[in-house]
Amino acid sequence: MTREESYAHGFEVLKSIDGEAGERVVESLQDVNPELAHQVVAWGFGEIYSRPALQPRDRQLVTIGMLTALGGCEPQLEVHVNAALNVGLTAEEIVEAMLHSAGYCGFPRALNATFVAKKVFAERGLLPVQQS
Amino acid sequence: MTREESYAHGFEVLKSIDGEAGERVVESLQDVNPELAHQVVAWGFGEIYSRPALQPRDRQLVTIGMLTALGGCEPQLEVHVNAALNVGLTAEEIVEAMLHSAGYCGFPRALNATFVAKKVFAERGLLPVQQS
Amino acid sequence: MTREESYAHGFEVLKSIDGEAGERVVESLQDVNPELAHQVVAWGFGEIYSRPALQPRDRQLVTIGMLTALGGCEPQLEVHVNAALNVGLTAEEIVEAMLHSAGYCGFPRALNATFVAKKVFAERGLLPVQQS
Amino acid sequence: MTREESYAHGFEVLKSIDGEAGERVVESLQDVNPELAHQVVAWGFGEIYSRPALQPRDRQLVTIGMLTALGGCEPQLEVHVNAALNVGLTAEEIVEAMLHSAGYCGFPRALNATFVAKKVFAERGLLPVQQS
Amino acid sequence: MTREESYAHGFEVLKSIDGEAGERVVESLQDVNPELAHQVVAWGFGEIYSRPALQPRDRQLVTIGMLTALGGCEPQLEVHVNAALNVGLTAEEIVEAMLHSAGYCGFPRALNATFVAKKVFAERGLLPVQQS
Amino acid sequence: MTREESYAHGFEVLKSIDGEAGERVVESLQDVNPELAHQVVAWGFGEIYSRPALQPRDRQLVTIGMLTALGGCEPQLEVHVNAALNVGLTAEEIVEAMLHSAGYCGFPRALNATFVAKKVFAERGLLPVQQS
Repeated sequence: MTREESYAHGFEVLKSIDGEAGERVVESLQDVNPELAHQVVAWGFGEIYSRPALQPRDRQLVTIGMLTALGGCEPQLEVHVNAALNVGLTAEEIVEAMLHSAGYCGFPRALNATFVAKKVFAERGLLPVQQS
Repeated sequence: MTREESYAHGFEVLKSIDGEAGERVVESLQDVNPELAHQVVAWGFGEIYSRPALQPRDRQLVTIGMLTALGGCEPQLEVHVNAALNVGLTAEEIVEAMLHSAGYCGFPRALNATFVAKKVFAERGLLPVQQS
Repeated sequence: MTREESYAHGFEVLKSIDGEAGERVVESLQDVNPELAHQVVAWGFGEIYSRPALQPRDRQLVTIGMLTALGGCEPQLEVHVNAALNVGLTAEEIVEAMLHSAGYCGFPRALNATFVAKKVFAERGLLPVQQS
Repeated sequence: MTREESYAHGFEVLKSIDGEAGERVVESLQDVNPELAHQVVAWGFGEIYSRPALQPRDRQLVTIGMLTALGGCEPQLEVHVNAALNVGLTAEEIVEAMLHSAGYCGFPRALNATFVAKKVFAERGLLPVQQS
Repeated sequence: MTREESYAHGFEVLKSIDGEAGERVVESLQDVNPELAHQVVAWGFGEIYSRPALQPRDRQLVTIGMLTALGGCEPQLEVHVNAALNVGLTAEEIVEAMLHSAGYCGFPRALNATFVAKKVFAERGLLPVQQS
Repeated sequence: MTREESYAHGFEVLKSIDGEAGERVVESLQDVNPELAHQVVAWGFGEIYSRPALQPRDRQLVTIGMLTALGGCEPQLEVHVNAALNVGLTAEEIVEAMLHSAGYCGFPRALNATFVAKKVFAERGLLPVQQS
């Protein structure tokens, strides 16, 4: 694949998972760090996300765990709570993952992540979260 | 104790330490992650905070150290600077703890924590901080 | 439930997920911090892990993401790579999750986690990891 | 040197590297933690920054790496992207350092740092970043 | 004070708090980074630790919180668990602080810190920890 | 470029910077996570390290800053202290960068990094570090 083909392939994967929120991040990088935009798309999504060895919903569970644990990644968590819903995780599973995170990275990280989820759920009409 | 009694017990401890700021956090979780609210209250406060092996002021010193070091926990630090004042630490001791933190987690974390303390102290009429 | 019943319930959940590795951690705490042992078991496993809102394999995906991102949690990651295999994740899914982590927390964390997985897989006769 | 001389010396170093942004941080500490202000200036700049064993531009490369990796240090990163430009790094080198950081601390940290750089570059008329 | 006097003053403070463990760290730096040794002693202990605004035992509570939260600081935590005992904290208070840390930075950090404490307590004949 | 050509190109870059230490890391991944090995080489070195917008010595300054700040990356820091020497940084500059790091991420991280440098310098006959 050429550099342009790698980007085009990655962009399709990005759109299918992250949707418009992901596209906006990539667009906002063009005047400041276009190569970072290229690598997020062509490598992050084109090379890594497109591998079949882990299902899309499973990738989002790992990602939500990482972003919650890292802290200070609220903008990325917002993108990935949306992504998680896009690929089939339920709101209840997402907040349960955040409750689960409390034991591994503490309540402050779990709370910050949960309030990001609350914002996304409000935008998508998913509040209050349904308990199965 | 039943689940309801555990919550009620924890809520009394929460109110005595964190005051209204803690109550607001718990309330804001109800529509998105009510079990996280339950566990913060029933476990975090009812089980852990209520143990006599460490004095309330000592718990806040440890907590301020942790929240400063973790970074990205400004909302929680705001609650706990208030809590620290509620349980008897002075503004001078709190900012000295943050100065002390610079040697262990660097100036950026110490500065971010100090500006949270400044906001709380301003609300409580404690600026400028009195030097003993 | 009494305190003893909570512990007994949590211990059954712990054994079913973490196996002997988890039991050894709990045992090693008895002379230094028995209450921490109690809370890991009664709360972490009895209260949180036993909730049905997230499948055991999904909890391990989130957990592996968190432990990889936190760094410095190699002993806990060893327990949870074992746990992940115990609850049905394949070695290939586990290392794919670690490859996936590189984009979110960088190669050093991904490498450290992968070498923990390599140790566990060697002990369980799972090397070389089978590619589907 | 007396305490006052140490401060005066550090303040000259601070102004020459961080410029007005650094002065504002120091000023905002005076009513809440004046000793922290003193130590940032007299020790951080007077003792450490003024040592000749590492060039000012090299110190900013190390600093940008650290602040990007730590996360949650956006206010400090804003000061130091300005400082980096003040001591001779180009906008292109700064964003390349942030692209480089992706492999070591992941895309979220690299993105957060890049958006801070974008803000600073916009204020200084450096957008779009020129590619050599 | 001259540079030599600052060091001598800091070294007295270091010895009174950290004891031999602190001296060994300083000694081991002499051939690789003697200025770092100087600054730990003259600044960290001579300037910061010697300030009266926070009691020595309170400084160790904050320090244990920070080192537990940071992770990967086991060598420093070993020095400071010793220091905490030297300045009057009990083994029970130290492990209670580590139990308390679980809610703020998660069980893995709390466990790693507790196993460092166990090593120190074993060397000082403090196991099993006495419960008041 | 084909996948094989990307790898071959990246491997040349890896060898020129990291030397044998880098090769050993890649080799040790082959039975557990060969795709991670491929991506470290083909992407990390072939795509990112080979870009001319930042000099090799500057990349190592940023990298040492990041690895010091992250903590728990001692194996990677060992590789990159070697790499830093390979691309022209002096031992004195490396330890000065670590002293500089103390103000941004605290003494514990600075100390852990310095002791890794000490190990590498001992192996390469660079102790005691020469002061210019």
